[in-house]
Amino acid sequence: MSILVMKFGGTSVANLSRIKNLQQLVKKKISNGHKKILVVVSAMSGVTNNLVQQYKKIDFNINNPEYDVILSTGEQYSSALISTFLNKNGIKSRSILGWQIPIITDDKFSQARIEKINTEKILKLFKKFNVLVVAGFQGISLEDRITTLGRGGSDTSAVAIAVALKSKICEIYTDVEGIFSSDPRVVKDAKKIENITYEEILEMASLGSKVLHPRSVELAMKYDINIHVRSSFKRKQGSMVVKEENKIEKEVVTGIAASENDANISLKGIPDKPGVAGQIFGILADADINVDMIVQNITDDGKFASITFTVPLDDCKKALKVLRNSKIKFKKISFDTKICKISIVGVGMKSNVGVAKVMFETLAKKNINIKVISTSEIKISVLIESHKKKVALNSLHKAYGLGL
Amino acid sequence: MSILVMKFGGTSVANLSRIKNLQQLVKKKISNGHKKILVVVSAMSGVTNNLVQQYKKIDFNINNPEYDVILSTGEQYSSALISTFLNKNGIKSRSILGWQIPIITDDKFSQARIEKINTEKILKLFKKFNVLVVAGFQGISLEDRITTLGRGGSDTSAVAIAVALKSKICEIYTDVEGIFSSDPRVVKDAKKIENITYEEILEMASLGSKVLHPRSVELAMKYDINIHVRSSFKRKQGSMVVKEENKIEKEVVTGIAASENDANISLKGIPDKPGVAGQIFGILADADINVDMIVQNITDDGKFASITFTVPLDDCKKALKVLRNSKIKFKKISFDTKICKISIVGVGMKSNVGVAKVMFETLAKKNINIKVISTSEIKISVLIESHKKKVALNSLHKAYGLGL
Repeated sequence: MSILVMKFGGTSVANLSRIKNLQQLVKKKISNGHKKILVVVSAMSGVTNNLVQQYKKIDFNINNPEYDVILSTGEQYSSALISTFLNKNGIKSRSILGWQIPIITDDKFSQARIEKINTEKILKLFKKFNVLVVAGFQGISLEDRITTLGRGGSDTSAVAIAVALKSKICEIYTDVEGIFSSDPRVVKDAKKIENITYEEILEMASLGSKVLHPRSVELAMKYDINIHVRSSFKRKQGSMVVKEENKIEKEVVTGIAASENDANISLKGIPDKPGVAGQIFGILADADINVDMIVQNITDDGKFASITFTVPLDDCKKALKVLRNSKIKFKKISFDTKICKISIVGVGMKSNVGVAKVMFETLAKKNINIKVISTSEIKISVLIESHKKKVALNSLHKAYGLGL
Repeated sequence: MSILVMKFGGTSVANLSRIKNLQQLVKKKISNGHKKILVVVSAMSGVTNNLVQQYKKIDFNINNPEYDVILSTGEQYSSALISTFLNKNGIKSRSILGWQIPIITDDKFSQARIEKINTEKILKLFKKFNVLVVAGFQGISLEDRITTLGRGGSDTSAVAIAVALKSKICEIYTDVEGIFSSDPRVVKDAKKIENITYEEILEMASLGSKVLHPRSVELAMKYDINIHVRSSFKRKQGSMVVKEENKIEKEVVTGIAASENDANISLKGIPDKPGVAGQIFGILADADINVDMIVQNITDDGKFASITFTVPLDDCKKALKVLRNSKIKFKKISFDTKICKISIVGVGMKSNVGVAKVMFETLAKKNINIKVISTSEIKISVLIESHKKKVALNSLHKAYGLGL
């Protein structure tokens, strides 16, 4: 049985007119010959935030099974409402919840990982229905409790089901036309990327680009499923997430991302002894603070070092506190929250020299000071002052020839 | 294991301060020695109506499994939120949904009947938790679909669980102090009834008194469980629903109810032949219209009959239409929607003569014309003009000595 998997995000099911649009997209697929369609839906936009807010009036701890019971009502509601609409409009459909499939997960509530999907029931139901509307974002633990997969988890539900059903592709319908070479709100001539590799989009996601849930990409990569990210409003091709081998035209740089979710902390006058850096990052790790970019310098006399690193903006205060209260010796601690991380991403980088040089030169020409640099095989990130973001993005976008 | 069953209606869980009140009631029970408490909750007040409204924007047919999936989110949400609150306030608790118990029902969606409750899981969970918060109103069909029990169904959930757990009593917490001899908004000196029999409350319920879901009373009657209807806001004894044998003081009339949910239809000039009445009510039954009070007269010449009956107000138009379109011959059809059904209810009636006489005389004295009369063993109902409701209720309440 060939089954098409289509996933619709919160804005694509936000109200009745959006649901009607979904119905038309599904109807088109049916008339194009797709006999069996599995639609994965998110909660209607705003619903999950509202549920979280209500919950947090009582408890801030989200690693609580009741949190998942509450949040899962959002997708339960949207899946049943959408199925009602499809039926009412002549498409034989029913809703199906995480526990009904079942989608078995571990019991890490609020951020559960899928362990197994039983396709038997899905296949059986497809004998009776043409469309199944699956409540995304949710599963069930081995102890029979409702779990949820973390924000954006419906992408992962969709890809995981596509894997289980041995589909070759998973369509993700969203409110943007695809994945862009840079943020179109900042870079006017940003263009839609036709093909992007799993690795590239994972880097983009880790940089704050919210197009796909990272675990969905990891799954698609592992099982070799293409993800087609496309607009639910405009009827045209979006961006295809593919294996590197399948990306014919390998631009050196595929996309440029900016993230303003970090803070920069500097410790000056640390005794330059082995193990100090380990101590610092050990303390931060114990406090559950994720450190990203790191630079260490040694002063001219060789006795003292300074160390600079970034932490998530929300954790900045906490990081300062644990460091000040620790046994680490330093002369001065300072921080900066008005910073921006600019990253260039591209699989072509691996086989191209001079990519970094273009980046540094372009920024230098615009008088933009680089505070910290970090690199991976397919990414170079630099930390700059945040008011320079727009200039940096636009000049780099131009320098790498990414414009329309 | 002795388990106390407490059920809280929508107004009793309407917001955080009400949930706090619930928590205090539960805490009091615990300190009074109840080690294991099963709390059954409704959706927070307003939530179910809102869900119904959203659903009806798409479909009016509520005999649809998706309707139940949607509605059941209300209790799913409240049970998890309340459990979170109890835990946060030191009471070891968890939520449990209809399908998790499971509460097995038939598959009459939107008005399912409970067939079986498995207590194994409940008993197992009580080894770990002191309070289980059960989502009321919901169950699961043998085909693994969520079902709901109809409006007010949480009462039935609570009594059915009490039956399954072999409890002797089920406490129903609500926004009134108990069951009253008449509507306190209309009859100023209406008093709380301390003991009322199952039969009496069933008659009251069928007359529009919304205190208890009728099926919950039928169940309690069948399995001999007392229901204690009491206020969740005032800490005092409410009304106890008991077997007739246990009601020591048997008033002739226990309560007086008024219902304005009916319309009156009259057909005049029907040929007086056998089978005509059967035809008329057959047509209405085929159209799913429930006929309540019926009076038939024959004209003086014996050739024609007239027939008068009541139908639910909402079905009046439909009833008129199917009768006009039928093959029934009649000279005139008329209807009246401004009518009120006044009923006196009491198990003592069975052994007392003259009860009806007091009713008719009292109404006659007040110049209130009786249109239709119907009686059962423990009830007499009369149909009057609805603007006479207040006078009728108050004078009857006085005549039967029900006041404070």
